[in-house]
Amino acid sequence: MKEDIFINIIKESLPESAKYIGDDTAYIPEKDLILTQDTMIEDVHFRTSTITPYFLGRKSIAINLSDIAAAGGVPEYILISLSMPKNIGEDFIKEFYKGVNSICKEYKTLVVGGDLTGAEKITVSVCAVGSGKGLTPANRRSANPGDVVVVTGNCGSSGAGLHILESKAKIPDETSTKFIQSHINPVPRIKEGRKILQTAITPAMMDTSDGLADALYKICLSSNVSMEVDFDEIPYDSDINLIVQNENTVQNLVLFGGEDYELIATIPEKAYEKLKQEIFIKKIGIVKPAENEPFAYINFKTRQKIRLDEEILGSSPGLFKHFE
Amino acid sequence: MKEDIFINIIKESLPESAKYIGDDTAYIPEKDLILTQDTMIEDVHFRTSTITPYFLGRKSIAINLSDIAAAGGVPEYILISLSMPKNIGEDFIKEFYKGVNSICKEYKTLVVGGDLTGAEKITVSVCAVGSGKGLTPANRRSANPGDVVVVTGNCGSSGAGLHILESKAKIPDETSTKFIQSHINPVPRIKEGRKILQTAITPAMMDTSDGLADALYKICLSSNVSMEVDFDEIPYDSDINLIVQNENTVQNLVLFGGEDYELIATIPEKAYEKLKQEIFIKKIGIVKPAENEPFAYINFKTRQKIRLDEEILGSSPGLFKHFE
Repeated sequence: MKEDIFINIIKESLPESAKYIGDDTAYIPEKDLILTQDTMIEDVHFRTSTITPYFLGRKSIAINLSDIAAAGGVPEYILISLSMPKNIGEDFIKEFYKGVNSICKEYKTLVVGGDLTGAEKITVSVCAVGSGKGLTPANRRSANPGDVVVVTGNCGSSGAGLHILESKAKIPDETSTKFIQSHINPVPRIKEGRKILQTAITPAMMDTSDGLADALYKICLSSNVSMEVDFDEIPYDSDINLIVQNENTVQNLVLFGGEDYELIATIPEKAYEKLKQEIFIKKIGIVKPAENEPFAYINFKTRQKIRLDEEILGSSPGLFKHFE
Repeated sequence: MKEDIFINIIKESLPESAKYIGDDTAYIPEKDLILTQDTMIEDVHFRTSTITPYFLGRKSIAINLSDIAAAGGVPEYILISLSMPKNIGEDFIKEFYKGVNSICKEYKTLVVGGDLTGAEKITVSVCAVGSGKGLTPANRRSANPGDVVVVTGNCGSSGAGLHILESKAKIPDETSTKFIQSHINPVPRIKEGRKILQTAITPAMMDTSDGLADALYKICLSSNVSMEVDFDEIPYDSDINLIVQNENTVQNLVLFGGEDYELIATIPEKAYEKLKQEIFIKKIGIVKPAENEPFAYINFKTRQKIRLDEEILGSSPGLFKHFE
């Protein structure tokens, strides 16, 4: 599997860095720094035909804030490296930074630097700096048998939005707009991530940037646990049935869609009871001992059951899916 | 001028960030953080035909360390976002990170994160995190009349190396190797930058990533001072005359070549006398009051004199030259 091979090469090449590789954010305890960096490239991660410069600016920040959210951290500073073709005009830059400014204000985050250079394709690389404010950030390795598995919002909406944009399917306007917004203007769950970290002490946590299934798979593998998840408990917008009629396709969008930027966490039942009074959070399953099979199982009401393993997640899940 | 227009747009779009925009690094005093980010894109900033993956790894880190050096800071952490085409093999990744590891070890800097994704062109975006360790970092705005202008090493060598690589000129092997090394394996002047900051207290400082002339021009403009610089005092490797025969071309390489990653600083005469005992540093001119003309002048022994203004630096100098 290409992902494993690449990660092993990096770990071998950078032996002192090995302990930092594997989570979406790096944590520097001595400085209480949470660091993350993500790159979006035209025609790989987005198309100019389906996202405006304003929302591209917002989304490039949002996906990095989401990584800070998954750590339960507080975002503070942003660096933006923007590369673009010669023919890009002032309007693009104006709209892009207007989008950047709007989301940074919402999350009280300050742009402090970056660079601007030429490229054949629009390329946005953002580095976000956050703080744990006295709490050790969440990671993927802390799930414990007995915990409940929770999610902070609808799964599959972003994937449905992408489907509308790419297929030009005829969907009622209002429905269409709702799903497209989920895709181009995702909401980083900063408040939710922070509450979860404060309440559950050591949750395992990830965002669903690469899909719900991917997050469950990775938490199981990293924590060496198993999970039982009820598909019927997973929150999703039922209007998704207006976008794709086939039930299997609905399930695929919900489980594998990606880019929803909701949070998945494993927390004690007690923390769940407290948290659900304060934020939207939905229990979808429970954590079990791995017993040599550190995988999540999705149970359907048909009594069908699928195991989220390497095979079902494809030959290159997660971070590396863009190579395929 | 495209550069000015773009920077003004960014400042207007991000009013709270305006005070951070203009230096190559951002400084967060509350956390003693020095932050910088630079992106290198295949066929814009480098060609795979002229740099090996190992040296690409080194250089992508070196150019960011050089920004920390120009602040007089101490580098501590690195994030690397590497994007590349599908057909890139394991060997590339192995060699690239081997290069990254070698330079990070030399400068006691730790890679703590990043991401890996697909792209049509190899794209490396690096974020470096440093510290002032109790000292306020240097910037471009602190040059004072009476200061001397100093440089930490040879100018034009990197440009000469690029010239050899691109022209395939027939040069004696040893000479050729020396200049090519300057281009593909630049040395970030961390030690020198730190010493200058410690000794001169508030130097103006920049690296020569965009050329000696560009650094002089920007310090004059930002500090509202003028400079008199003697061309004959500027250190350069005289073997450069074996690469290009025409004297004007030599002068162009020395003044405008770029990518040498030496430091330019303005410091009190006393600090210069002390520093030259400890590091390689060469006085090339003096700082004068601007008197409404905040430009550097280069004096040649022919009594010719050139003024480094917008016109001579081209329509898009510096950071933005890659747009042209």
